[in-house]
Amino acid sequence: MTTLKDLQIIIDEAVKKLSYPAHPADLYEPITYILSIGGKRLRPALVLMACDLFGGDVLSAVPPALAIEVFHNFTLMHDDIMDNAPLRRGRETVHQKWNPNVGILSGDAMLIEGYKLMMQVDNNILRPVLEIFNTTATAVCEGQQIDMQFEQQNDVHIDEYLEMIRLKTAVVLGGALEIGALIGGATGKDAELLYTFGEQLGIAFQLQDDILDVYGDPEKFGKQVGGDIMANKKTYLLIKALETADTESQNELNHWISLKEFDAAEKVAAVTAIYNKLQIRENAVKAMQTYADKSFKALESIDLPMERKQYLKEFAEGLLSRDK
Amino acid sequence: MTTLKDLQIIIDEAVKKLSYPAHPADLYEPITYILSIGGKRLRPALVLMACDLFGGDVLSAVPPALAIEVFHNFTLMHDDIMDNAPLRRGRETVHQKWNPNVGILSGDAMLIEGYKLMMQVDNNILRPVLEIFNTTATAVCEGQQIDMQFEQQNDVHIDEYLEMIRLKTAVVLGGALEIGALIGGATGKDAELLYTFGEQLGIAFQLQDDILDVYGDPEKFGKQVGGDIMANKKTYLLIKALETADTESQNELNHWISLKEFDAAEKVAAVTAIYNKLQIRENAVKAMQTYADKSFKALESIDLPMERKQYLKEFAEGLLSRDK
Repeated sequence: MTTLKDLQIIIDEAVKKLSYPAHPADLYEPITYILSIGGKRLRPALVLMACDLFGGDVLSAVPPALAIEVFHNFTLMHDDIMDNAPLRRGRETVHQKWNPNVGILSGDAMLIEGYKLMMQVDNNILRPVLEIFNTTATAVCEGQQIDMQFEQQNDVHIDEYLEMIRLKTAVVLGGALEIGALIGGATGKDAELLYTFGEQLGIAFQLQDDILDVYGDPEKFGKQVGGDIMANKKTYLLIKALETADTESQNELNHWISLKEFDAAEKVAAVTAIYNKLQIRENAVKAMQTYADKSFKALESIDLPMERKQYLKEFAEGLLSRDK
Repeated sequence: MTTLKDLQIIIDEAVKKLSYPAHPADLYEPITYILSIGGKRLRPALVLMACDLFGGDVLSAVPPALAIEVFHNFTLMHDDIMDNAPLRRGRETVHQKWNPNVGILSGDAMLIEGYKLMMQVDNNILRPVLEIFNTTATAVCEGQQIDMQFEQQNDVHIDEYLEMIRLKTAVVLGGALEIGALIGGATGKDAELLYTFGEQLGIAFQLQDDILDVYGDPEKFGKQVGGDIMANKKTYLLIKALETADTESQNELNHWISLKEFDAAEKVAAVTAIYNKLQIRENAVKAMQTYADKSFKALESIDLPMERKQYLKEFAEGLLSRDK
């Protein structure tokens, strides 16, 4: 069993070897640039892990793993334009460094490059692999659209939120694992179970992200703690708080949300205090555990000896107990 | 042999039957909207014609033909954002009717829908068909990037221009025909010859477009005659004129290009007069004929009796002698 660190090294080296034509520079340089910014390479690592799980040749899964990484970065490039974000992982976003048109067109080219990489699988699994990729890609677009709508929508229900994060985040983890499983020689049934493992894990992962944004250790958490609160981002915590609060807490929350100008630390402290009073953290952890359980149940059902699956289980547990 | 009009009816009906989920509405409604605006459906008709040419079942080529049409409209949706165009075929563009973010994301979803449709071919040609689609899609992105660069570039050479229109316009005609040929059961060699027919025809077609913009009959031409001149668009005519003009005409041309404010009719008349003096129209027609000849030569080389290919030849001749 190859370790996660080994897999991430394989991916990082493969990403560095991806080369694009020199011209037109404004089409291809942004692709190399955004891929060089890095990130955890979690999604492509899942492709390799899944392939490895079923005893497949990990190296044969590298191009489809890169496809998932290129696709993921395409969504970041376009999302950053839509969110008007100046920075991504501490570096200038593509539309900021170049301009929005370059971001749109380079992103388009990246999506196509994703397909080219994803097609580097054996003929006998070409169609099912691409079908999973198509479904995944469509889900991510739907999730992003719903997420953008939430900004204009006051009454987001918790079920809508969970469906949004399933589409925008979780489906890619599931898709990456299912594709890796097929490359590794899994049956369609086992590949689907691994999809469910990844999808449910992905929802749990996003809930953990929401929790960390408020309760993360500022020393360890990569982003600014309280960032979601400052931006009125509709996370599991805010939606749940608005849903379960008494009138007084609800008014207080809405007051903080409505303020155009505020002291950031004061707002974060006040909203966190409301969350504490309403035991939102405990509620979110419980929800996260429910999805983790569903995820582990799917993993257990896969027709492989449990010790073979232990590594993925520990990997998932590590993800969900992370503090950054 | 099915006539072009029959094929266009088949496509129009198939486009109308394309249905997308109701939610999220802002993701899918723009797709239905832009597809409903119409257009000549020339590109998908080429897929069907090519399939028909080799005796294939035209109906089996309908989904890939739709893929080409959906892809083409995806490029229009994103190009309109990049060009800041308020209207497309006399109707509001998507980013104008909704907003740019909707245009970006709906376009992304459309590109994926294009892949889904393109995959509806037999397994034995799935890989080659998708490879042609990938190559075509990448070329169009490159062509659009180069076209955008031309706006900032003063010294566009005629060869660069011809390469840009090959990438942005001609490759899709070639790709549509090559895919249709493979569906129709053509050999790889014949499919490639048909690609060349389409590619060279596409360059000739774009040159004809450039000519019509200046010399078209205002009664018949769909767009405003002289639109390219008003916008200082670097067409074959302008580039050739700047290249071949004596100092006096060059200065006069550059004077008109530099004016921020001008009487449109006066500018169109003045620039046209320079073109006339330099015999630019004759030059462009000759260039067009060169590409048409290359196109017809490729068609002739296809291993089918000439009478079977007559229909495509007449179709091409019709395109190149069009007045609108």
